[in-house]
Amino acid sequence: MTAPRYLALTGGVGGAKLALGLSKLLPPDQLIFVVNTGDDFAHLGLHVSPDIDTLVYTLAGESNPETGWGRSGETWHFMEALTQLGAETWFKLGDRDLAMHVERTRRLKTGETLTLVTTGLAAALGIRHAILPMSDDPVATFVRTPEGPMDFQHYFVRERCQPVVTGFEFRGAQAARINPLVLEWLEDPRLRGIILCPSNPFVSINPILQVANLRQHLAGSKARVIAVSPVIGGAAIKGPTVKMMRELGVVGTADWVAGHYRDFLDGFVLDAVDANLRETIAAMGLDVTVTRTLMISLEDRVSLARACLDLIG
Amino acid sequence: MTAPRYLALTGGVGGAKLALGLSKLLPPDQLIFVVNTGDDFAHLGLHVSPDIDTLVYTLAGESNPETGWGRSGETWHFMEALTQLGAETWFKLGDRDLAMHVERTRRLKTGETLTLVTTGLAAALGIRHAILPMSDDPVATFVRTPEGPMDFQHYFVRERCQPVVTGFEFRGAQAARINPLVLEWLEDPRLRGIILCPSNPFVSINPILQVANLRQHLAGSKARVIAVSPVIGGAAIKGPTVKMMRELGVVGTADWVAGHYRDFLDGFVLDAVDANLRETIAAMGLDVTVTRTLMISLEDRVSLARACLDLIG
Repeated sequence: MTAPRYLALTGGVGGAKLALGLSKLLPPDQLIFVVNTGDDFAHLGLHVSPDIDTLVYTLAGESNPETGWGRSGETWHFMEALTQLGAETWFKLGDRDLAMHVERTRRLKTGETLTLVTTGLAAALGIRHAILPMSDDPVATFVRTPEGPMDFQHYFVRERCQPVVTGFEFRGAQAARINPLVLEWLEDPRLRGIILCPSNPFVSINPILQVANLRQHLAGSKARVIAVSPVIGGAAIKGPTVKMMRELGVVGTADWVAGHYRDFLDGFVLDAVDANLRETIAAMGLDVTVTRTLMISLEDRVSLARACLDLIG
Repeated sequence: MTAPRYLALTGGVGGAKLALGLSKLLPPDQLIFVVNTGDDFAHLGLHVSPDIDTLVYTLAGESNPETGWGRSGETWHFMEALTQLGAETWFKLGDRDLAMHVERTRRLKTGETLTLVTTGLAAALGIRHAILPMSDDPVATFVRTPEGPMDFQHYFVRERCQPVVTGFEFRGAQAARINPLVLEWLEDPRLRGIILCPSNPFVSINPILQVANLRQHLAGSKARVIAVSPVIGGAAIKGPTVKMMRELGVVGTADWVAGHYRDFLDGFVLDAVDANLRETIAAMGLDVTVTRTLMISLEDRVSLARACLDLIG
């Protein structure tokens, strides 16, 4: 009897919450995380990996529950001094958070891959599960707007998601190679389940799916692939998911998300608030679990993780 | 009648103290500072310019009187987080100080010269006098030790000046061009005085003198060139000056410093403690001022600056 393996795809804050729950149920040899790096960007000469850091800080117990990004107990003296120097300050880098960016950038410059830099830094913070960038090759998410394509962080942070979205570009995604450690798990017969965490389908999950046609890998996988709805009652807990859906002219409800993934999906976890959508989604040929998906407490996170594993079976 | 001009060569903390005094007596169109960049180094991927920063923080009223380096009211959360990540931590970078290094590095990467980056950042901190790197080309001070040459900051900070010094190398100095703004002042007929601040002759002043044979420029200058002794009663106020002198087999007193500069020097400011050396130094053909050179208060700084201007005449 060999232990089954699981692979979780994740982006921002919601994804990291479920990832934390999963990490409480499965040991490191049974679970790895694949993280979106489409919104990585160079800022002040530093390589910033927002989604990796969100997961790292979450699993390390260092995440900031108030802001939803950055580290807990953070201070802002660097930013104050930067303001004094007249430098760019629209992207906030806390004093502690900065250590991550500086050290990551330094190690990348020596030629280390983002994978090894990330696993090394995560291990230093006591994290035992592998946090893997979707690719070691650069992929850059651009948001299409009526004024032209906009770098994701400029859209998300500087412009506070105000511009109307007309589409997305994942520059470099086709040429990027899937992280080889991820590919290894995808091809491993012990792989039992693939979980799409409740992350923004457009800018967190889609960039991962686009890397070297990972989406087709999922469609062809013998493992069960399930997704947790990032939408509850027509709203996202955090972030612009539903605003984007509306601007793209699609209905802002969970069933659209299920349909969006239906070519490779086996199961879908729907919030109890959206129980009325169960039949619609089941009619797509998906197994549906209806449960509470809102994650406030650690118990919520673990309980949703358990629902995912149950749905995988 | 045209206002006379002055040029001050400076390195570390002692030099910055006198520079502050000079800045209180002379307006920006009559005084510029030429700063050693031989101990600039790349650390954690950042361009650190210790002597420039010492002067910038001193003139901006932001220097840390306790440490003698870095900024006042500094915090250390970045360093704590860096320690947690297992990164290199022997060189301390305060949270506020870090803004300087990150922004400098960013601007240098865009192709700006160190001169324009420095004057820009100094201006942002309210400094009106020009703080000029000795050169925009890289010069790297190496300390020769029995174990081989050692990068200056490794010697100075990491090894706390413990290794025995057998000599120095200023890599790149011969090929480096003198800062063109400095050269302009050196050739200006209004230049009345050149002041060597009380900085380490080996690792603060010598690198400046080595740049494209600046030493010969000084020897040929019509301006009066004076130096303030960095040694009082056979000791340096701060730093390894006298330790280096002894290890190099020279006598650790002020007259050696005067002799070391005699090929281009017109005057020497000696501390009252060393009044007995006055005749020895005068016998080198130098005008000698004997005064208090210890700078504790702002008044001390201004008063020593005035003694310098008086000696220049």
